[in-house]
Amino acid sequence: MTDGSEFALNCPLPLNPTDFVTMAHGGGGSVMQRLIEEVFCAAFDNPLPGVQHDAATFAVDGKRLAFTTDSYVVQPLFFPGGDIGSLAVHGTVNDLAMGGARPLYLSAGFILEEGLPMETLKRVVDSMAEAARCAGVAIVTGDTKVINRGSGDGLYINTAGVGVVEEGCCVSPAAIREGDCVLVNGDLARHGIAIMATREGLAFETTIESDSAPVSGEVRALFDAGIEVHCLRDLTRGGLSSTANELVKASGLTLRLEETAIPVREDVRGACELLGFDPLYVANEGRFAAFVAGADAERAVEVLREAGAQRPTVVGKVTAAQPPRVILRSQIGTERIIDMLSGEQLPRIC
Amino acid sequence: MTDGSEFALNCPLPLNPTDFVTMAHGGGGSVMQRLIEEVFCAAFDNPLPGVQHDAATFAVDGKRLAFTTDSYVVQPLFFPGGDIGSLAVHGTVNDLAMGGARPLYLSAGFILEEGLPMETLKRVVDSMAEAARCAGVAIVTGDTKVINRGSGDGLYINTAGVGVVEEGCCVSPAAIREGDCVLVNGDLARHGIAIMATREGLAFETTIESDSAPVSGEVRALFDAGIEVHCLRDLTRGGLSSTANELVKASGLTLRLEETAIPVREDVRGACELLGFDPLYVANEGRFAAFVAGADAERAVEVLREAGAQRPTVVGKVTAAQPPRVILRSQIGTERIIDMLSGEQLPRIC
Repeated sequence: MTDGSEFALNCPLPLNPTDFVTMAHGGGGSVMQRLIEEVFCAAFDNPLPGVQHDAATFAVDGKRLAFTTDSYVVQPLFFPGGDIGSLAVHGTVNDLAMGGARPLYLSAGFILEEGLPMETLKRVVDSMAEAARCAGVAIVTGDTKVINRGSGDGLYINTAGVGVVEEGCCVSPAAIREGDCVLVNGDLARHGIAIMATREGLAFETTIESDSAPVSGEVRALFDAGIEVHCLRDLTRGGLSSTANELVKASGLTLRLEETAIPVREDVRGACELLGFDPLYVANEGRFAAFVAGADAERAVEVLREAGAQRPTVVGKVTAAQPPRVILRSQIGTERIIDMLSGEQLPRIC
Repeated sequence: MTDGSEFALNCPLPLNPTDFVTMAHGGGGSVMQRLIEEVFCAAFDNPLPGVQHDAATFAVDGKRLAFTTDSYVVQPLFFPGGDIGSLAVHGTVNDLAMGGARPLYLSAGFILEEGLPMETLKRVVDSMAEAARCAGVAIVTGDTKVINRGSGDGLYINTAGVGVVEEGCCVSPAAIREGDCVLVNGDLARHGIAIMATREGLAFETTIESDSAPVSGEVRALFDAGIEVHCLRDLTRGGLSSTANELVKASGLTLRLEETAIPVREDVRGACELLGFDPLYVANEGRFAAFVAGADAERAVEVLREAGAQRPTVVGKVTAAQPPRVILRSQIGTERIIDMLSGEQLPRIC
């Protein structure tokens, strides 16, 4: 019998990263993209568009629905600004919002490690319930599995979500146009740094809290205000840089980012320098990029601010320059090409 | 900081099973039921009916949809008659079918352990794809997370599913009536025994293969034939006994089972005796119980047989006897009360 479960005991350390799963395969960068394309997409022969995006969409009796899933394996389970429970709600709510959908219902699948204190589970579940109430979604179905002590890190959660795509909405990378402006809804890199600081027991002068939050209300405000939104994408694993690179690849256009415009808190910037991270690659859990028609950009900033967005900002513009790439204009006016994250910068941040 | 993830290192062995998660909390019996009721249902304040059933149902523009999720942590990953991949498709397809729904779309969330051979992953993914094709569903969205070596057992999978509830269908425990007959679609206890035999390296005279299979086609045939179906329930964790107990509790009626009618293969019965298991408590992954109007029972058997059911059989009848319980009439005419599984009989079978 071939039993993959036994590899941890008797196989040598991987020599060739294509032969064994590595942490980089979950890092949100190009290594993960290749896994998705070569293993999952190749096998699943998906009839719907958008499988590689945050949510799949399909029609039932003419009504367009969005469907998405994410598993959460963050370590530690609790961190400043959130925990695995609230993260599991926000992440899936946001994936639906990025598909242009109003999130309605979530499922919750728990993989619990034998020995987990019931108090920890209750705390996580209460946090999920509160996050769902705040985001206006209901957790309607679930599942519990228990794995043996030593076969997990306390608790893994999967959430899947179903939403209704807003009328007339057709956000996708293919809808990005020359002249579009790119907005972000708040300061970047806090989630990844909050996790890393907690995990490593680092204390900065200020507590850096995760930006984990639902963004569905902000997205809906853009649609309600009639903003011409072409594409939405959350800035999770791989950060703004990886998202931007995915989108220039998919749209065939170039994205020019202004470094001075990109909001990063001073304490977060300092922590990034100390830890050797580039904030453009660090994961966020309540931040997204919106590609909107250039003429709507300033109004979109206003709409987002009124909807409660923390610091909505235009950070770049789409041009037709070829080949398609992400270009960052620095504070001193120099330009450099920003690549996709290749492996993983911060493991287990969601 | 309180961090539940560290419990494995520094907490003592659980003294009180209500204070720590135990394997029994995932076993499908009354201990798991209590966890669901006291922790999950208490927090999630679910607005929809049926949260404790296999699938939640809700309406979007008048169209009724079903939504369900399951995580799969089976050990070993491969076993006679299936693997974690096909199981992850069958389980969720069957949960939708048990909600009276035609399964349409699945999500797939992978939690991969660092070091997993890519060949193992590909084999599982190919098996999922094949199972989805056979069941007529599409896997349309997914997610990949990687956990550190030692933090998993190679591979965990979550699938969620969306389906359309068949017109006019309203299966539920509340619809069970006095005089209903209970059918099963095939012989019982093979899945659990196949897993256990593989795990323990037991060899019987014949290879006992799992019964894992999609049952959505069989369920649809019942509806298409106009059979008056009142309730459907798959016989997974906890087996026929636990399912029957859940349903008598929910319906307030009594279920009388005929031991001689319940199909169990001779080799499976022998293995159960050897291992000390009662086949009525052993998990199945391609078996369900259908509660149908008494007058339709014989026709339902025929319909199921024509739809390819392996051994459709009437195994019992619903009576109004109080208090509600599950009574088994044995081969020699004696009667005994069958209780719900309390903890777990076979861990990690799905």
